[in-house]
Amino acid sequence: MRIGELSRRTGVPVPTIKYYVREGLLPPGELTSPNQASYGDPHERRLRLIRALLEVGGLSLAAIGEVLDAVDDKDRPVHKVLGAAADRLVPGHTSEPDAETDLARDKVARLIGERGWRVSPASPAGEALAVALAALARVGHAGFAAEVLDEYAGAAERVARVDVEYVAGKAAREDLVETVVVGTVLGDAVFAALRRLAQVDASARTFEAG
Amino acid sequence: MRIGELSRRTGVPVPTIKYYVREGLLPPGELTSPNQASYGDPHERRLRLIRALLEVGGLSLAAIGEVLDAVDDKDRPVHKVLGAAADRLVPGHTSEPDAETDLARDKVARLIGERGWRVSPASPAGEALAVALAALARVGHAGFAAEVLDEYAGAAERVARVDVEYVAGKAAREDLVETVVVGTVLGDAVFAALRRLAQVDASARTFEAG
Repeated sequence: MRIGELSRRTGVPVPTIKYYVREGLLPPGELTSPNQASYGDPHERRLRLIRALLEVGGLSLAAIGEVLDAVDDKDRPVHKVLGAAADRLVPGHTSEPDAETDLARDKVARLIGERGWRVSPASPAGEALAVALAALARVGHAGFAAEVLDEYAGAAERVARVDVEYVAGKAAREDLVETVVVGTVLGDAVFAALRRLAQVDASARTFEAG
Repeated sequence: MRIGELSRRTGVPVPTIKYYVREGLLPPGELTSPNQASYGDPHERRLRLIRALLEVGGLSLAAIGEVLDAVDDKDRPVHKVLGAAADRLVPGHTSEPDAETDLARDKVARLIGERGWRVSPASPAGEALAVALAALARVGHAGFAAEVLDEYAGAAERVARVDVEYVAGKAAREDLVETVVVGTVLGDAVFAALRRLAQVDASARTFEAG
């Protein structure tokens, strides 16, 4: 199809599509004449993926580029690619060394040990957890983490189990990695919205009379 | 304390503190001379809250301003303020009317009905869920939502129950609302990191030999 048709199908303006091609996020179309390129289903699919990561996932274009590089890297074994894709979906934090973060890192290591999770506390996700726990402590809510962390971890295990079951049902390698990316980014948005809905319900039952 | 001391204690540069005061995010200090203002513990606490929402929560300054307005509005009953604060923590989506979003809205209404949640599907959180489900459908992963939604909802109920229990333990109204804001924004970051850690573990058990 021509670029105009690709634009109509996806709702993405033509100049934006051209920008994504220039930035290397979208492969160029096949040239059918010096001034005209032809685009196919993979372009449409990739374009929809970029928009979903951008609009619902809230990722920057730079982060999307890194994630797509992991998706497109055919030389790595599947579980390494899954790990690399997951790592790039964790916001990078450059936390200065301080007492709160050191304490939080200890908590993360202890939690992982107690749960028997096969993952390093020093992984990007472990570090992101330590940063979030340290931020809670800094605003005077270390108690929040202490009270809720174990229930949160149990709920996260439940969510991760169905995540991986869904991913394992995908046969093709490309599908597999794309599924992890989509499931992780959009899955966070789905879970955050569900948590808000369930909070409103739990709050109504707790704080409203009757 | 003087602004320099407030800056040292919180690690926020003086010009940034002045900017927050100009933007109305931070109340001005008490003038002790025409050129000097004095800041207290509430300033330090508010400043730490702003930084946590910005750095860990990923909220924009505009969104932080709206959330703080809800925290500071003393005239509303508690559960209404909780609702207003929660609503402002959901990213605003201006989704055009389309078939996927309509279908997703039906799914959200059905889920809320089945769960018996006391919340409107048209609330910001309900709409955010519909937008995320529609985005999944658009990238060819409607199956993800179909397979995982019920387990996600069960896990969200579990998380929301401990969230509200923690909030209910706070006596002062100001603490209550601030706790909801902190718990919601930083709680999302905590849960997302835990989900990644649990995913790596579940993935290792599923995809690695041995």
